[in-house]
Amino acid sequence: MIQLQTTNLYREIHEQPQVLAHLIEAEWDAAEALATAIRERSITHVLIAARGTSDNAARYANYLFGIANGLPVGLATPSLYTIYGAPPRFGNALVLGISQSGKSPDIVAVLAEARRQGALTAAITNVPDSDLAQAAEHVIALHAGEERSVAATKTYTASLAAIGLVSVALNGDGEMRSALAAMPRVVAQALAAGNDIARVAERYRYMKSCIVIGRGYNYATAYELALKLKELTYTVVEPYSSADFQHGPMALIEPGFPVIVVAPSGRMLPEMQGFMQILRDREAEMVVISDDAATLASGRIGLALPTGVPEWLSPLSAIVPGQLFAMHLASTRDYDPDRPRGLQKVTETR
Amino acid sequence: MIQLQTTNLYREIHEQPQVLAHLIEAEWDAAEALATAIRERSITHVLIAARGTSDNAARYANYLFGIANGLPVGLATPSLYTIYGAPPRFGNALVLGISQSGKSPDIVAVLAEARRQGALTAAITNVPDSDLAQAAEHVIALHAGEERSVAATKTYTASLAAIGLVSVALNGDGEMRSALAAMPRVVAQALAAGNDIARVAERYRYMKSCIVIGRGYNYATAYELALKLKELTYTVVEPYSSADFQHGPMALIEPGFPVIVVAPSGRMLPEMQGFMQILRDREAEMVVISDDAATLASGRIGLALPTGVPEWLSPLSAIVPGQLFAMHLASTRDYDPDRPRGLQKVTETR
Repeated sequence: MIQLQTTNLYREIHEQPQVLAHLIEAEWDAAEALATAIRERSITHVLIAARGTSDNAARYANYLFGIANGLPVGLATPSLYTIYGAPPRFGNALVLGISQSGKSPDIVAVLAEARRQGALTAAITNVPDSDLAQAAEHVIALHAGEERSVAATKTYTASLAAIGLVSVALNGDGEMRSALAAMPRVVAQALAAGNDIARVAERYRYMKSCIVIGRGYNYATAYELALKLKELTYTVVEPYSSADFQHGPMALIEPGFPVIVVAPSGRMLPEMQGFMQILRDREAEMVVISDDAATLASGRIGLALPTGVPEWLSPLSAIVPGQLFAMHLASTRDYDPDRPRGLQKVTETR
Repeated sequence: MIQLQTTNLYREIHEQPQVLAHLIEAEWDAAEALATAIRERSITHVLIAARGTSDNAARYANYLFGIANGLPVGLATPSLYTIYGAPPRFGNALVLGISQSGKSPDIVAVLAEARRQGALTAAITNVPDSDLAQAAEHVIALHAGEERSVAATKTYTASLAAIGLVSVALNGDGEMRSALAAMPRVVAQALAAGNDIARVAERYRYMKSCIVIGRGYNYATAYELALKLKELTYTVVEPYSSADFQHGPMALIEPGFPVIVVAPSGRMLPEMQGFMQILRDREAEMVVISDDAATLASGRIGLALPTGVPEWLSPLSAIVPGQLFAMHLASTRDYDPDRPRGLQKVTETR
């Protein structure tokens, strides 16, 4: 049996409130400088290069920059640079690289080409002297301390907060800024609320596969929760938006099929409730992550989130029960959460 | 037992060569008109709105427009329009909707907003008087005839060809144009080469889950093959780029884990061969789709593609053995390929 409390994963999950508090304090000026450059250079769209957990943070930016700042976001496809030797024209885009280590050569290659073309470049990374940081004009550092667990947790929520800082700096919205500043406390509450998740995880000891559903801001949460389950528990897990899932994959659902639904309060909640009704009609087994009592009660299992969080910030707390669930499920299966099968901390792809 | 030859799915898979020939002939002028507008209006990037199979065609456009035309592509996130009421500014983007039926309200909403903002709009659809077509300035019709099978096949390859037409019209490259014109014959060869796939599918009768890997141009193929397997065989299938797969999901691989690798000749092939070596070291079971003899031989099962196809067109033929595999696997499981569990042909999401 693994003593969870002694693992890097456990420690890093529980470090998240401090990491967020430090980051939000320390990087405000860097976010403002980037926002100023975005305004001065009349940036019309954003292209993000990222892999793995950082790519899930990019999914969040897709919604936040789109909704709060009117900036459309595209995800860069690094093989255009590294394999096909045919980088697109960046025009007046902000090109943003997100990477914990700042090392993956494909992500660095996108930023280097963007800089060569004279596009505005920025990096979000935990290693401020990394290749990625050196390739970018603007750097937002994550201040997460070394992340030793292979499965990223604190650098994920820190990346979300870094994206939030940039969005707030662009908007100059004081209410958004105070809501972001409250998130370290909210994440601490989400951690405290997760005490019964060890018991819940027992039920899924022999689950071979499942689906995770989130949409809008929490599309990112669905992807990140699915990735943690894959890395830590070797479950075959597919993340989906509720809309995409209805265009084909719904055929997978038979009675008892496990579906995790991320459904915090906000404008997306009615859509998610409608989708959950379809799942109930098909007798899926639902695990619901929400702050809404009725929504929680409508699943077979409910994982409660702190209340009073604006929807745009809900991904920072909504991932927490997912991180805990993946950690405890690994533990019920006697897998070492610090040593996922066949993974290294830094993956260098081209 | 299902008589496969009498199903809509079988018929529509085998109609693909004629559909492609018709489309390439009939829509050249429409593609040229769109290309002219893209040039005249100094379009700098493309935003695509699509769901399901059409979204996989969009993934192809991401690579083709990027590599052949230097145009970065982003995927629009319809919920920004339909749920959050916060559409981003399109600037000088081409906004492209892809939908077989042209009916899904969320895709129509993106095009309508783009038109309202004065952006250049285009639709790729099988129904030229659909809401989507009416919302767009430019329409490329698929000429696929009615698609009765719930699982889309002929409208997928037709959508790829429509994207190919636009790319060729933008480039004015005669060699690309003749290569595209040869694809109906190539797809017919791919169909003829698929005779032993019924026997191959037997081996996977009890496969519960698998991974499909493709990268670059054939990232789209991996997604579309995974979707067909989900819709028709209810297998839990995850598509991945070989690069993303190494950033976490690699932990899933244990001896015997089934992985389908899409690896046609071209600039991506060495990368895929390197990835296949990692899979072999971990004793995964590999099904390989390729035109390269050595690559085919390195898998447990090889599904051969016609040779002599340029990489940028390989997705049109590389999906064919995947379509046949999904159909035959459904048949070995006694599932009716024309009636996937819980799906309708037209899915209207918002």
